[in-house]
Amino acid sequence: MKRRELLTAAGLGLGALALSGCKDEQPAAAAGEQSQQRFRWKMVTSWPKNLPGLGTTAEHFAQLVGKLSNGRLSVQVFAAGELVPALEVFDAVASGTAELGHSAAYYWKGKSAAASFFTAVPFGMNAQETNAWLYEGDGLELWRKAYEPFGVLPLPCGNTGVQMAGWFNREINSLDDLRGLKIRMPGFGGEVLARAGATTVSLPGSEIFTALQTGVIDATDWVSPYNDLAFGLHQAAKYYYYPGWQEPSAVLELSINRKAFDALPADLQVIVEQAARSTNQAMLDEYTRRNAEALDTLVNQHGVQLRRLPDPVLQRLRELSQQVLEDTANQEPLNREVWDSMEAFRQKVWANHALGEQVMYGLRG
Amino acid sequence: MKRRELLTAAGLGLGALALSGCKDEQPAAAAGEQSQQRFRWKMVTSWPKNLPGLGTTAEHFAQLVGKLSNGRLSVQVFAAGELVPALEVFDAVASGTAELGHSAAYYWKGKSAAASFFTAVPFGMNAQETNAWLYEGDGLELWRKAYEPFGVLPLPCGNTGVQMAGWFNREINSLDDLRGLKIRMPGFGGEVLARAGATTVSLPGSEIFTALQTGVIDATDWVSPYNDLAFGLHQAAKYYYYPGWQEPSAVLELSINRKAFDALPADLQVIVEQAARSTNQAMLDEYTRRNAEALDTLVNQHGVQLRRLPDPVLQRLRELSQQVLEDTANQEPLNREVWDSMEAFRQKVWANHALGEQVMYGLRG
Repeated sequence: MKRRELLTAAGLGLGALALSGCKDEQPAAAAGEQSQQRFRWKMVTSWPKNLPGLGTTAEHFAQLVGKLSNGRLSVQVFAAGELVPALEVFDAVASGTAELGHSAAYYWKGKSAAASFFTAVPFGMNAQETNAWLYEGDGLELWRKAYEPFGVLPLPCGNTGVQMAGWFNREINSLDDLRGLKIRMPGFGGEVLARAGATTVSLPGSEIFTALQTGVIDATDWVSPYNDLAFGLHQAAKYYYYPGWQEPSAVLELSINRKAFDALPADLQVIVEQAARSTNQAMLDEYTRRNAEALDTLVNQHGVQLRRLPDPVLQRLRELSQQVLEDTANQEPLNREVWDSMEAFRQKVWANHALGEQVMYGLRG
Repeated sequence: MKRRELLTAAGLGLGALALSGCKDEQPAAAAGEQSQQRFRWKMVTSWPKNLPGLGTTAEHFAQLVGKLSNGRLSVQVFAAGELVPALEVFDAVASGTAELGHSAAYYWKGKSAAASFFTAVPFGMNAQETNAWLYEGDGLELWRKAYEPFGVLPLPCGNTGVQMAGWFNREINSLDDLRGLKIRMPGFGGEVLARAGATTVSLPGSEIFTALQTGVIDATDWVSPYNDLAFGLHQAAKYYYYPGWQEPSAVLELSINRKAFDALPADLQVIVEQAARSTNQAMLDEYTRRNAEALDTLVNQHGVQLRRLPDPVLQRLRELSQQVLEDTANQEPLNREVWDSMEAFRQKVWANHALGEQVMYGLRG
């Protein structure tokens, strides 16, 4: 045996193998010996095949895990409908049909009332603040608590940044213009608009364009310029409203089947966690660039008419948002715990961001 | 040999070893076989031992690499002065004295005039925008180009977010108050203040407190509440000024000896890159929380007097900043390439953030 091979064998800690396999005695296992067991995981998603930003973020995560693990953990990504429908991702991960899911927590509010808080909160924290709450505050711990009964582990895995208010075929000049408006908006934003008199519906992304174009709905939110341009929503609506009061930050969710995760060696568990954290940053980086480019394309090439929601409308939506969030918090102790934690964190961070982030924005332009 | 051990041996691709080591024939090497070669790297830093946020971020990175690699790559962190002085980190990495460094690029402007652009630009991009420029724009590519002659690979590895303008023992009510002011401020900010008539000095963190307390300097920037509180700067100066016009985002730098990096197997290279990207996010998360907590402590427990720089002063500093940045851009083709790339990216992204991030900040409070 060449010296290098002996060292390799030692490094691999194959004492037991060598002893049982042949007469050569090998050194005992070295620290940090690498398990070479291979894992092939499925990841179901709520996104159309290769949807820019969302589908591609799931692919980014999967490729990262493969590279970091040198192929010991491979992740095959399935688009919405390939293995399970868009809105059955959580069930598939909970049941073990797939080990991983990539979606958004607010789709699961029917299972855990607290889930909506972990995607987006109207007039809540932006991406930087939300990440800090999740990793430096109580956010991630509370999210895990919400999913514990389902045997699912959540991790943030992508963020859109501040979204747009959405695409409208009616101008919104006053609160009256929201009454009777048929709008697609999931999560808390939809509940707020319902209290403002709108009729809200929840549709997966793949059905939005047709519903808007055929007049089944008068308006819709989707994400932000990058995704909205890819869906061609400017061809189905006249006005593009801002700001995205309903989603000042939207967290994409990596859901992990708990038993599958527990069966991984420790280093692969860390790889899954860190690939998610790196992907969380990568998606925000991508959206920060692509949203800017897409907005320019929408306005300067497609002549999209930008509209800002009038301040009285925004103020009323903010009041209604506080009511919806308080009412949701009152439904269950966990909801209250999550909402109080978010609000306390937002207010603490806000005092500092008011001296820095906000002042610097004010000096721009 | 037990079946599991046989499978393990197969997974490890030890055909060659088994054939040479004994008579048992083993299957050929499986794809993705793991190199078990071990690497022990040194990381020199510009930070005092365990300095909260900076020293601890270097430690965070080192521990992450150890866990992700299951100990195949271990990183030992050295505080400023333990192996090399604070401001010799770059040389140590370039020469191979250490494989890694954790510091800030603007300390190396004497080596590469473009270096200052990669830490902080007065009135420039915030953390979210800077990360997007680095990873989605030309930023990282240009940074590598700047360090190529030195055999050093840079990666962003931490961000402070918007800083504070600094600690002053004089009130700044007009531009006149800047004349003759002795202030510690590195990078472009220092050059801008020099043009405003101040006398700027560059000091490593460890010397700031004494210099300020003994009156060797009248004022200093350091970082933001989290780090400033840890240094006790409120005990050495009367007024705490905002906003941090000079560093609306400050990028910490991971410097890597190119030859050492090239000698790593591909999966360990990805682990170094991804640990840096995850750490970049982790530090911003930490600062977002800790700065808010420290500001509260400084104001409500230590009675620190917050002061906002007057708008006429900020406007003049902004004009002088543009001059300094343009003059620096004119020094070398690479400087021009970097500055034009940053400005083009900032303006593109700004148009979108003006509709979202800024509007939402305006609805706060």
